[in-house]
Amino acid sequence: MKTLHVYQNTLFRKYVFISGLIIACILAGTSLMAQEKEIQDIRVQTMAVPNDNADGRWAIAIHGGAGGPARGTMSANQEKAYLEKLNEALSIGMKELESGGSSMAAVEAVVKFMEDCPLFNAGIGAVLNENGKAELDAAIMDGRTGKAGAVAGVMTIKNPIEAARFVMDKTNHVMLVGKGAENFAKSMGLKIVEPSYFITQERLDSWKKWKSNPPSGTKEEQEAQGKHGTVGAVALDVKGNLAAATSTGGMTGKMEGRVGDSPIIGAGTYANNNTCAVSATGHGEYFIRNVVAYDLSALLEYRQMTLEEAAKTTIIEKLEKLGATGGLIAVDREGNVVMPFNTNAMFRGFAKSTGELEVAVY
Amino acid sequence: MKTLHVYQNTLFRKYVFISGLIIACILAGTSLMAQEKEIQDIRVQTMAVPNDNADGRWAIAIHGGAGGPARGTMSANQEKAYLEKLNEALSIGMKELESGGSSMAAVEAVVKFMEDCPLFNAGIGAVLNENGKAELDAAIMDGRTGKAGAVAGVMTIKNPIEAARFVMDKTNHVMLVGKGAENFAKSMGLKIVEPSYFITQERLDSWKKWKSNPPSGTKEEQEAQGKHGTVGAVALDVKGNLAAATSTGGMTGKMEGRVGDSPIIGAGTYANNNTCAVSATGHGEYFIRNVVAYDLSALLEYRQMTLEEAAKTTIIEKLEKLGATGGLIAVDREGNVVMPFNTNAMFRGFAKSTGELEVAVY
Repeated sequence: MKTLHVYQNTLFRKYVFISGLIIACILAGTSLMAQEKEIQDIRVQTMAVPNDNADGRWAIAIHGGAGGPARGTMSANQEKAYLEKLNEALSIGMKELESGGSSMAAVEAVVKFMEDCPLFNAGIGAVLNENGKAELDAAIMDGRTGKAGAVAGVMTIKNPIEAARFVMDKTNHVMLVGKGAENFAKSMGLKIVEPSYFITQERLDSWKKWKSNPPSGTKEEQEAQGKHGTVGAVALDVKGNLAAATSTGGMTGKMEGRVGDSPIIGAGTYANNNTCAVSATGHGEYFIRNVVAYDLSALLEYRQMTLEEAAKTTIIEKLEKLGATGGLIAVDREGNVVMPFNTNAMFRGFAKSTGELEVAVY
Repeated sequence: MKTLHVYQNTLFRKYVFISGLIIACILAGTSLMAQEKEIQDIRVQTMAVPNDNADGRWAIAIHGGAGGPARGTMSANQEKAYLEKLNEALSIGMKELESGGSSMAAVEAVVKFMEDCPLFNAGIGAVLNENGKAELDAAIMDGRTGKAGAVAGVMTIKNPIEAARFVMDKTNHVMLVGKGAENFAKSMGLKIVEPSYFITQERLDSWKKWKSNPPSGTKEEQEAQGKHGTVGAVALDVKGNLAAATSTGGMTGKMEGRVGDSPIIGAGTYANNNTCAVSATGHGEYFIRNVVAYDLSALLEYRQMTLEEAAKTTIIEKLEKLGATGGLIAVDREGNVVMPFNTNAMFRGFAKSTGELEVAVY
């Protein structure tokens, strides 16, 4: 079943998004046509300065979480809303990279945008923990320097990814959690909000549903509950520098203080100019135990696998064996992009200086 | 002050602990004889049932932190105290393994013992953060199942390693931080203490010294301040199962909420029956960025390196290049043990079913 989806997905990619100009035709369904036209327009706009020479090569991939609703359960409007926001997010990163900006700036800007979008499980719109509160995690890593920053268990920082960047740039530490992270963010002048700022009606409803009937924990139930939302971006800039950023509210009903894989360097977030940049989304505990993001890098470095082989190994083979669900996005030093997942869906998109571009849910 | 009364006996390491049988003779000085006799007795006792056949093979290694005082600055009494406690800790693990106990039970018991010993930077005797408080991190990982548990930023749990074990056994999560972790530990009936319980006079003095004159951060200064204390244990049991456990107070003057590598699976703690079990100690930020513990495992798995080659690669080559200090202990599935470090000292010890045994500081 799961494997089927993966193959379907591969097949899907074969046909879809070969060029930005034929997308609307390929994504069949007349009700989607109008919205696809809009998406296409954004693409044309952001691809105004394609740069496909080896030196000026860039690439970016983004995700808005794996494990969303099963195909057919999301309304056309809902799907359209997600695709639009994914396109907007992608275009922010593309503009940065096209204009010669750094991969660090691109991934931070994209993730910040997605944090500010209530559709995604990060920043405002984050899912709620067992106590009905939003507890946020985020991390960023610079493949050029190997430096990284992360925050976890924060409840008052409007944009956790910014705080993660400040931890990296302004402290001798990599990770700050809880009150300490919040105090630091405040001292750096970052936007502080009331904990209630993050809570949307939709997430409150999900939480109430969870509260009245906590899931038994089967894979299907977890997916149905959309537990796996997380946002992330990875990028290669024209200088050949890789970067990764991830931000999340975790999983609905998580225990107070629970930290998932997103802010754990090597688990949910990793970047290394010699190999690749990775941002993961999924059942975080398995991603931590499998050190997924660094494992991908290690397979490139130590086994000379291609990015695609490595992604298949980590997400399809290793995680599947454990019954774990999720996906990841990764870009390597050559600008190759992979976006494997073993769930029903993963909100995702990528763009390259070659003009290739894709935004998809299933 | 601390640095002054440490370091007299430069000859110590040369002579000591070549074998359990000749220790009393080698450790000259009549005042030391009685105690050393006791240490020897522990060894003889715990080595009563050596098992060096392949099936019944076991091994354990422990550390009490890297980056201690430079050789010659520790008093004979101080050094003696450390060696005694290392021996006691080791004997606890050895007894567990000799009697057929699991590597998980062994590493947890050893780390718990070291947490309860004020000499080491974990549990009582932990170093203090910027606010003069002890904030503790710990993790444990089971190489047989790949399951893991961790707590970070906790201030009231007497034995963080027990809480980490409970996170692994009793929740669906891997990591809990701050209040959430403390509430969970309390709900599990673990011993809760006042934050002041952890603070010893010696650590308070160190903190005051730090407060009045924060170090500029050079490698030498960091080492002199003994920033790198951490305790850990790794073991292979007679059933071939590997386990790792680590616990720490972090570094003196660390920012509130700072989480180091110890509780990060893949950074400071990792175990996998197919490769090895690792517990690290050192400048945690570099260990996180380099995903050191999992890197060691990956070098075994993907590069077919020996444990020694892999340890050299991670600790000596990769970390040295970054100017990072620290060390690690590791045991592989064959029962090989390595204890590399690039600091002045690392409190450490190991024992095997073959009868090999060593406890050392320099």
